[in-house]
Amino acid sequence: MRTSSEVFAQKGYDRASVRDISAATEISLSGLYHYFSSKEELLFLIQKTCFDTLLERLGEDLAGLESPGERLSVVVRNHVRFFADNMAEMKVLSHEADALTGDYKEQIADRKRDYVDIVRQCVEEILETPYEADGRVATFALFGMMNWMYTWYRPTRDVSVDRLGSVILHTFLNGISSPLPDQGKAVEGAGSHGIRLFDID
Amino acid sequence: MRTSSEVFAQKGYDRASVRDISAATEISLSGLYHYFSSKEELLFLIQKTCFDTLLERLGEDLAGLESPGERLSVVVRNHVRFFADNMAEMKVLSHEADALTGDYKEQIADRKRDYVDIVRQCVEEILETPYEADGRVATFALFGMMNWMYTWYRPTRDVSVDRLGSVILHTFLNGISSPLPDQGKAVEGAGSHGIRLFDID
Repeated sequence: MRTSSEVFAQKGYDRASVRDISAATEISLSGLYHYFSSKEELLFLIQKTCFDTLLERLGEDLAGLESPGERLSVVVRNHVRFFADNMAEMKVLSHEADALTGDYKEQIADRKRDYVDIVRQCVEEILETPYEADGRVATFALFGMMNWMYTWYRPTRDVSVDRLGSVILHTFLNGISSPLPDQGKAVEGAGSHGIRLFDID
Repeated sequence: MRTSSEVFAQKGYDRASVRDISAATEISLSGLYHYFSSKEELLFLIQKTCFDTLLERLGEDLAGLESPGERLSVVVRNHVRFFADNMAEMKVLSHEADALTGDYKEQIADRKRDYVDIVRQCVEEILETPYEADGRVATFALFGMMNWMYTWYRPTRDVSVDRLGSVILHTFLNGISSPLPDQGKAVEGAGSHGIRLFDID
Protein backbone atom coordinates (compact mmCIF):
# COMPACT_ATOMS: atom_id res chain seq x y z
CA MET A 1 0.00 0.00 0.00
CA ARG A 2 2.88 2.37 0.76
CA THR A 3 4.53 1.75 -2.61
CA SER A 4 1.19 1.99 -4.39
CA SER A 5 0.56 5.33 -2.71
CA GLU A 6 3.92 6.56 -3.96
CA VAL A 7 3.06 5.47 -7.50
CA PHE A 8 -0.36 7.17 -7.31
CA ALA A 9 1.20 10.31 -5.80
CA GLN A 10 3.82 10.51 -8.51
CA LYS A 11 1.87 9.59 -11.65
CA GLY A 12 -1.66 10.43 -10.52
CA TYR A 13 -4.31 7.77 -9.99
CA ASP A 14 -5.67 7.99 -13.53
CA ARG A 15 -2.34 7.55 -15.26
CA ALA A 16 -0.94 4.91 -12.90
CA SER A 17 -1.69 1.34 -13.96
CA VAL A 18 -1.70 -1.86 -11.93
CA ARG A 19 1.26 -2.77 -14.15
CA ASP A 20 3.14 0.26 -12.72
CA ILE A 21 2.28 -0.93 -9.21
CA SER A 22 3.54 -4.38 -10.12
CA ALA A 23 6.85 -2.96 -11.37
CA ALA A 24 7.31 -0.75 -8.30
CA THR A 25 6.41 -3.43 -5.75
CA GLU A 26 8.14 -6.25 -7.64
CA ILE A 27 5.00 -8.34 -7.13
CA SER A 28 3.46 -10.08 -10.13
CA LEU A 29 0.11 -8.90 -11.47
CA SER A 30 -1.58 -12.11 -10.34
CA GLY A 31 0.09 -11.73 -6.96
CA LEU A 32 -1.31 -8.20 -6.62
CA TYR A 33 -4.81 -9.33 -7.57
CA HIS A 34 -4.66 -11.65 -4.59
CA TYR A 35 -4.87 -8.56 -2.38
CA PHE A 36 -7.32 -6.40 -4.32
CA SER A 37 -9.67 -6.89 -7.25
CA SER A 38 -9.22 -3.57 -9.05
CA LYS A 39 -7.17 -0.38 -9.05
CA GLU A 40 -10.16 1.38 -7.51
CA GLU A 41 -10.28 -1.10 -4.62
CA LEU A 42 -6.59 -0.44 -4.01
CA LEU A 43 -7.23 3.33 -3.86
CA PHE A 44 -10.14 2.64 -1.51
CA LEU A 45 -7.97 0.48 0.77
CA ILE A 46 -5.29 3.18 0.95
CA GLN A 47 -7.83 5.86 1.89
CA LYS A 48 -9.68 3.57 4.31
CA THR A 49 -6.48 2.60 6.11
CA CYS A 50 -5.51 6.25 6.53
CA PHE A 51 -8.82 7.28 8.05
CA ASP A 52 -9.14 4.14 10.19
CA THR A 53 -5.67 4.68 11.61
CA LEU A 54 -6.22 8.39 12.20
CA LEU A 55 -9.58 7.75 13.88
CA GLU A 56 -8.32 4.90 16.03
CA ARG A 57 -5.22 6.75 17.30
CA LEU A 58 -7.15 9.96 17.88
CA GLY A 59 -9.83 8.11 19.85
CA GLU A 60 -7.21 6.47 22.05
CA ASP A 61 -5.29 9.71 22.65
CA LEU A 62 -8.38 11.81 23.37
CA ALA A 63 -9.88 9.28 25.79
CA GLY A 64 -10.11 10.79 29.26
CA LEU A 65 -8.63 14.14 28.20
CA GLU A 66 -10.85 17.02 29.24
CA SER A 67 -8.75 20.14 28.78
CA PRO A 68 -9.75 21.73 25.43
CA GLY A 69 -6.17 22.88 24.86
CA GLU A 70 -4.76 19.42 25.42
CA ARG A 71 -7.44 17.91 23.19
CA LEU A 72 -6.54 20.26 20.35
CA SER A 73 -2.87 19.52 20.93
CA VAL A 74 -3.59 15.82 20.51
CA VAL A 75 -5.53 16.49 17.30
CA VAL A 76 -2.65 18.43 15.72
CA ARG A 77 0.08 16.06 16.89
CA ASN A 78 -1.82 12.97 15.72
CA HIS A 79 -2.54 14.43 12.28
CA VAL A 80 0.87 15.99 11.63
CA ARG A 81 2.83 12.97 12.80
CA PHE A 82 0.71 10.52 10.83
CA PHE A 83 1.01 12.45 7.59
CA ALA A 84 4.69 13.27 8.05
CA ASP A 85 5.14 9.49 8.02
CA ASN A 86 2.72 9.14 5.10
CA MET A 87 3.24 12.10 2.78
CA ALA A 88 2.46 10.12 -0.37
CA GLU A 89 -0.84 9.03 1.16
CA MET A 90 -1.56 12.66 2.06
CA LYS A 91 -1.10 13.73 -1.56
CA VAL A 92 -3.28 10.83 -2.74
CA LEU A 93 -6.03 11.73 -0.24
CA SER A 94 -5.92 15.36 -1.35
CA HIS A 95 -5.74 14.81 -5.10
CA GLU A 96 -7.92 11.72 -5.48
CA ALA A 97 -10.74 12.73 -3.13
CA ASP A 98 -13.21 12.47 -6.02
CA ALA A 99 -11.80 9.40 -7.78
CA LEU A 100 -13.80 6.78 -5.87
CA THR A 101 -17.34 5.81 -6.87
CA GLY A 102 -20.38 4.06 -5.39
CA ASP A 103 -19.97 2.20 -2.11
CA TYR A 104 -16.22 2.93 -1.90
CA LYS A 105 -16.95 6.64 -2.14
CA GLU A 106 -19.64 6.47 0.54
CA GLN A 107 -17.52 4.50 2.98
CA ILE A 108 -14.68 7.01 2.71
CA ALA A 109 -17.06 9.97 2.93
CA ASP A 110 -18.48 8.50 6.18
CA ARG A 111 -15.06 8.14 7.76
CA LYS A 112 -13.98 11.60 6.61
CA ARG A 113 -17.14 13.11 8.11
CA ASP A 114 -16.50 11.33 11.41
CA TYR A 115 -12.95 12.60 11.49
CA VAL A 116 -13.84 16.19 10.57
CA ASP A 117 -16.62 16.17 13.19
CA ILE A 118 -14.23 15.20 15.99
CA VAL A 119 -11.69 17.82 14.95
CA ARG A 120 -14.38 20.49 14.60
CA GLN A 121 -15.69 19.67 18.06
CA CYS A 122 -12.19 20.15 19.51
CA VAL A 123 -11.80 23.44 17.61
CA GLU A 124 -15.18 24.75 18.77
CA GLU A 125 -14.38 24.02 22.41
CA ILE A 126 -11.85 26.85 22.12
CA LEU A 127 -12.99 29.09 19.29
CA GLU A 128 -14.16 32.53 20.41
CA THR A 129 -16.70 33.67 17.88
CA PRO A 130 -20.22 35.00 17.89
CA TYR A 131 -21.03 33.07 14.69
CA GLU A 132 -21.63 29.35 14.37
CA ALA A 133 -20.58 29.32 10.69
CA ASP A 134 -17.05 30.34 11.67
CA GLY A 135 -16.51 26.90 13.25
CA ARG A 136 -16.40 25.29 9.83
CA VAL A 137 -14.02 27.96 8.52
CA ALA A 138 -11.66 27.61 11.47
CA THR A 139 -11.70 23.81 11.26
CA PHE A 140 -10.77 23.78 7.59
CA ALA A 141 -8.21 26.53 8.14
CA LEU A 142 -6.54 24.13 10.57
CA PHE A 143 -6.77 21.25 8.11
CA GLY A 144 -5.26 23.54 5.49
CA MET A 145 -2.29 24.44 7.70
CA MET A 146 -1.66 20.75 8.34
CA ASN A 147 -2.48 19.17 4.98
CA TRP A 148 -0.60 21.69 2.86
CA MET A 149 2.64 20.24 4.24
CA TYR A 150 2.75 17.64 1.49
CA THR A 151 3.46 20.44 -0.98
CA TRP A 152 6.46 21.97 0.78
CA TYR A 153 7.68 20.11 3.88
CA ARG A 154 11.03 18.34 3.55
CA PRO A 155 11.96 16.54 6.78
CA THR A 156 15.69 16.66 6.02
CA ARG A 157 15.96 20.42 5.47
CA ASP A 158 13.02 21.88 7.40
CA VAL A 159 12.29 21.90 11.14
CA SER A 160 11.48 18.59 12.88
CA VAL A 161 8.02 17.10 12.65
CA ASP A 162 7.41 17.96 16.30
CA ARG A 163 8.47 21.56 15.75
CA LEU A 164 6.23 21.75 12.68
CA GLY A 165 3.28 20.52 14.75
CA SER A 166 4.20 22.86 17.56
CA VAL A 167 4.30 25.96 15.32
CA ILE A 168 0.96 25.02 13.76
CA LEU A 169 -0.66 24.31 17.14
CA HIS A 170 0.70 27.48 18.71
CA THR A 171 -0.39 29.68 15.81
CA PHE A 172 -3.84 28.20 15.52
CA LEU A 173 -4.55 27.90 19.24
CA ASN A 174 -3.49 31.45 20.06
CA GLY A 175 -5.28 32.67 16.97
CA ILE A 176 -8.67 31.18 17.77
CA SER A 177 -8.37 31.88 21.50
CA SER A 178 -8.71 35.61 20.90
CA PRO A 179 -12.25 36.67 20.09
CA LEU A 180 -13.08 36.90 16.40
CA PRO A 181 -14.50 40.27 15.38
CA ASP A 182 -18.15 40.84 14.59
CA GLN A 183 -18.97 40.72 10.92
CA GLY A 184 -18.57 44.09 9.31
CA LYS A 185 -16.21 45.22 12.04
CA ALA A 186 -12.50 45.71 12.07
CA VAL A 187 -10.30 42.80 13.12
CA GLU A 188 -9.82 43.20 16.86
CA GLY A 189 -7.01 42.06 19.07
CA ALA A 190 -4.31 43.04 16.63
CA GLY A 191 -4.27 46.71 17.41
CA SER A 192 -0.55 46.91 17.94
CA HIS A 193 -0.10 45.90 14.32
CA GLY A 194 -2.47 48.53 13.04
CA ILE A 195 -4.94 46.16 11.45
CA ARG A 196 -8.25 47.62 10.45
CA LEU A 197 -10.92 47.70 7.82
CA PHE A 198 -10.53 44.18 6.44
CA ASP A 199 -14.26 43.62 6.43
CA ILE A 200 -15.53 47.06 5.64
CA ASP A 201 -13.46 48.60 2.89
CA MET B 1 -8.53 30.24 -20.00
CA ARG B 2 -11.28 30.15 -17.39
CA THR B 3 -13.12 27.34 -19.15
CA SER B 4 -9.85 25.48 -19.77
CA SER B 5 -9.04 25.74 -16.06
CA GLU B 6 -12.41 24.23 -15.24
CA VAL B 7 -11.76 21.35 -17.63
CA PHE B 8 -8.28 20.76 -16.16
CA ALA B 9 -9.66 21.01 -12.61
CA GLN B 10 -12.42 18.51 -13.33
CA LYS B 11 -10.65 15.90 -15.47
CA GLY B 12 -7.06 16.51 -14.43
CA TYR B 13 -4.47 17.92 -16.82
CA ASP B 14 -3.27 14.52 -18.03
CA ARG B 15 -6.69 13.21 -18.94
CA ALA B 16 -8.05 16.43 -20.42
CA SER B 17 -7.47 16.80 -24.15
CA VAL B 18 -7.47 19.89 -26.34
CA ARG B 19 -10.55 18.30 -27.88
CA ASP B 20 -12.27 18.51 -24.43
CA ILE B 21 -11.28 22.18 -24.26
CA SER B 22 -12.70 22.71 -27.72
CA ALA B 23 -16.01 21.11 -26.71
CA ALA B 24 -16.24 23.12 -23.48
CA THR B 25 -15.31 26.47 -25.02
CA GLU B 26 -17.22 25.84 -28.26
CA ILE B 27 -14.15 27.03 -30.16
CA SER B 28 -12.80 24.88 -33.00
CA LEU B 29 -9.48 23.09 -32.59
CA SER B 30 -7.85 25.32 -35.21
CA GLY B 31 -9.34 28.35 -33.45
CA LEU B 32 -7.81 27.25 -30.14
CA TYR B 33 -4.39 26.69 -31.72
CA HIS B 34 -4.48 30.32 -32.74
CA TYR B 35 -4.06 31.18 -29.03
CA PHE B 36 -1.62 28.47 -27.91
CA SER B 37 0.55 25.89 -29.59
CA SER B 38 0.13 22.96 -27.18
CA LYS B 39 -1.82 21.81 -24.14
CA GLU B 40 1.29 22.48 -22.07
CA GLU B 41 1.47 26.07 -23.27
CA LEU B 42 -2.15 26.51 -22.24
CA LEU B 43 -1.38 25.20 -18.74
CA PHE B 44 1.62 27.53 -18.62
CA LEU B 45 -0.50 30.52 -19.64
CA ILE B 46 -3.08 29.73 -16.94
CA GLN B 47 -0.42 29.50 -14.23
CA LYS B 48 1.48 32.55 -15.53
CA THR B 49 -1.66 34.69 -15.59
CA CYS B 50 -2.49 33.73 -11.99
CA PHE B 51 0.93 34.62 -10.63
CA ASP B 52 1.25 37.78 -12.73
CA THR B 53 -2.13 39.01 -11.54
CA LEU B 54 -1.43 38.12 -7.90
CA LEU B 55 1.98 39.81 -8.01
CA GLU B 56 0.74 42.91 -9.78
CA ARG B 57 -2.21 43.49 -7.44
CA LEU B 58 -0.17 42.74 -4.34
CA GLY B 59 2.55 45.16 -5.42
CA GLU B 60 -0.01 47.91 -5.97
CA ASP B 61 -1.80 47.30 -2.68
CA LEU B 62 1.38 47.08 -0.60
CA ALA B 63 2.91 50.22 -2.10
CA GLY B 64 3.36 52.84 0.59
CA LEU B 65 1.94 50.63 3.38
CA GLU B 66 4.31 50.44 6.33
CA SER B 67 2.30 48.88 9.13
CA PRO B 68 3.18 45.15 9.29
CA GLY B 69 -0.39 44.28 10.30
CA GLU B 70 -1.88 46.17 7.39
CA ARG B 71 0.63 44.60 5.01
CA LEU B 72 -0.33 41.11 6.14
CA SER B 73 -3.99 42.05 5.87
CA VAL B 74 -3.41 43.06 2.25
CA VAL B 75 -1.61 39.76 1.55
CA VAL B 76 -4.49 37.67 2.88
CA ARG B 77 -7.23 39.74 1.27
CA ASN B 78 -5.49 39.78 -2.11
CA HIS B 79 -4.90 36.01 -2.12
CA VAL B 80 -8.29 34.94 -0.76
CA ARG B 81 -10.28 37.24 -3.00
CA PHE B 82 -8.36 36.28 -6.12
CA PHE B 83 -8.75 32.55 -5.55
CA ALA B 84 -12.37 32.79 -4.44
CA ASP B 85 -12.95 34.22 -7.91
CA ASN B 86 -10.69 31.59 -9.47
CA MET B 87 -11.22 28.33 -7.60
CA ALA B 88 -10.68 26.15 -10.66
CA GLU B 89 -7.33 27.87 -11.24
CA MET B 90 -6.44 27.29 -7.57
CA LYS B 91 -7.04 23.56 -7.94
CA VAL B 92 -5.03 23.51 -11.17
CA LEU B 93 -2.14 25.37 -9.53
CA SER B 94 -2.18 22.95 -6.59
CA HIS B 95 -2.56 19.71 -8.53
CA GLU B 96 -0.50 20.48 -11.62
CA ALA B 97 2.45 22.17 -9.95
CA ASP B 98 4.78 19.51 -11.40
CA ALA B 99 3.19 19.11 -14.84
CA LEU B 100 5.20 21.81 -16.63
CA THR B 101 8.65 21.14 -18.07
CA GLY B 102 11.69 23.09 -19.27
CA ASP B 103 11.40 26.83 -19.73
CA TYR B 104 7.70 26.87 -18.82
CA LYS B 105 8.52 25.21 -15.51
CA GLU B 106 11.34 27.66 -14.77
CA GLN B 107 9.26 30.74 -15.56
CA ILE B 108 6.50 29.62 -13.19
CA ALA B 109 8.99 28.62 -10.49
CA ASP B 110 10.52 32.12 -10.68
CA ARG B 111 7.16 33.83 -10.24
CA LYS B 112 6.15 31.49 -7.43
CA ARG B 113 9.41 32.20 -5.62
CA ASP B 114 8.89 35.96 -5.99
CA TYR B 115 5.38 35.65 -4.61
CA VAL B 116 6.35 33.41 -1.68
CA ASP B 117 9.26 35.74 -0.83
CA ILE B 118 6.97 38.78 -0.57
CA VAL B 119 4.47 36.89 1.60
CA ARG B 120 7.23 35.46 3.79
CA GLN B 121 8.68 38.94 4.30
CA CYS B 122 5.27 40.21 5.46
CA VAL B 123 4.90 37.21 7.80
CA GLU B 124 8.37 37.66 9.28
CA GLU B 125 7.72 41.34 10.03
CA ILE B 126 5.27 40.08 12.66
CA LEU B 127 6.35 36.56 13.61
CA GLU B 128 7.66 36.26 17.16
CA THR B 129 10.12 33.38 17.11
CA PRO B 130 13.67 32.78 18.18
CA TYR B 131 14.27 30.54 15.15
CA GLU B 132 14.73 31.65 11.57
CA ALA B 133 13.51 28.30 10.18
CA ASP B 134 10.06 28.92 11.69
CA GLY B 135 9.49 31.69 9.12
CA ARG B 136 9.17 29.15 6.32
CA VAL B 137 6.81 27.02 8.42
CA ALA B 138 4.59 29.96 9.33
CA THR B 139 4.50 31.20 5.73
CA PHE B 140 3.39 27.86 4.35
CA ALA B 141 0.95 27.41 7.24
CA LEU B 142 -0.68 30.63 6.02
CA PHE B 143 -0.66 29.44 2.40
CA GLY B 144 -2.23 26.19 3.61
CA MET B 145 -5.05 27.99 5.43
CA MET B 146 -5.76 30.00 2.30
CA ASN B 147 -5.17 27.47 -0.48
CA TRP B 148 -7.06 24.62 1.14
CA MET B 149 -10.28 26.55 0.47
CA TYR B 150 -10.60 25.01 -2.98
CA THR B 151 -11.35 21.67 -1.29
CA TRP B 152 -14.21 22.82 0.95
CA TYR B 153 -15.33 26.42 0.45
CA ARG B 154 -18.76 26.90 -1.15
CA PRO B 155 -19.58 30.61 -1.53
CA THR B 156 -23.33 29.98 -1.55
CA ARG B 157 -23.53 28.07 1.73
CA ASP B 158 -20.44 29.18 3.69
CA VAL B 159 -19.53 32.59 5.08
CA SER B 160 -18.75 35.44 2.65
CA VAL B 161 -15.34 35.69 1.03
CA ASP B 162 -14.55 38.72 3.17
CA ARG B 163 -15.50 36.86 6.35
CA LEU B 164 -13.41 33.90 5.24
CA GLY B 165 -10.41 36.16 4.74
CA SER B 166 -11.12 37.92 8.03
CA VAL B 167 -11.22 34.65 10.04
CA ILE B 168 -7.98 33.46 8.42
CA LEU B 169 -6.23 36.80 8.97
CA HIS B 170 -7.42 37.10 12.56
CA THR B 171 -6.39 33.55 13.44
CA PHE B 172 -3.01 33.72 11.80
CA LEU B 173 -2.12 37.25 12.90
CA ASN B 174 -3.05 36.69 16.54
CA GLY B 175 -1.36 33.31 16.43
CA ILE B 176 2.02 34.50 15.19
CA SER B 177 1.92 37.69 17.25
CA SER B 178 2.35 35.71 20.47
CA PRO B 179 5.89 34.45 20.96
CA LEU B 180 6.54 30.92 19.74
CA PRO B 181 8.03 28.64 22.38
CA ASP B 182 11.67 27.60 22.43
CA GLN B 183 12.31 24.25 20.85
CA GLY B 184 11.95 21.50 23.41
CA LYS B 185 9.76 23.69 25.59
CA ALA B 186 6.07 23.65 26.21
CA VAL B 187 3.83 25.79 24.02
CA GLU B 188 3.56 29.13 25.81
CA GLY B 189 0.81 31.70 25.72
CA ALA B 190 -1.97 29.15 25.84
CA GLY B 191 -1.83 28.46 29.52
CA SER B 192 -5.51 28.99 30.09
CA HIS B 193 -6.18 26.03 27.82
CA GLY B 194 -3.79 23.78 29.66
CA ILE B 195 -1.45 23.19 26.73
CA ARG B 196 1.87 21.66 27.56
CA LEU B 197 4.52 19.25 26.49
CA PHE B 198 3.86 19.17 22.76
CA ASP B 199 7.53 19.22 22.00
CA ILE B 200 8.88 17.10 24.78
CA ASP B 201 6.67 14.11 25.29
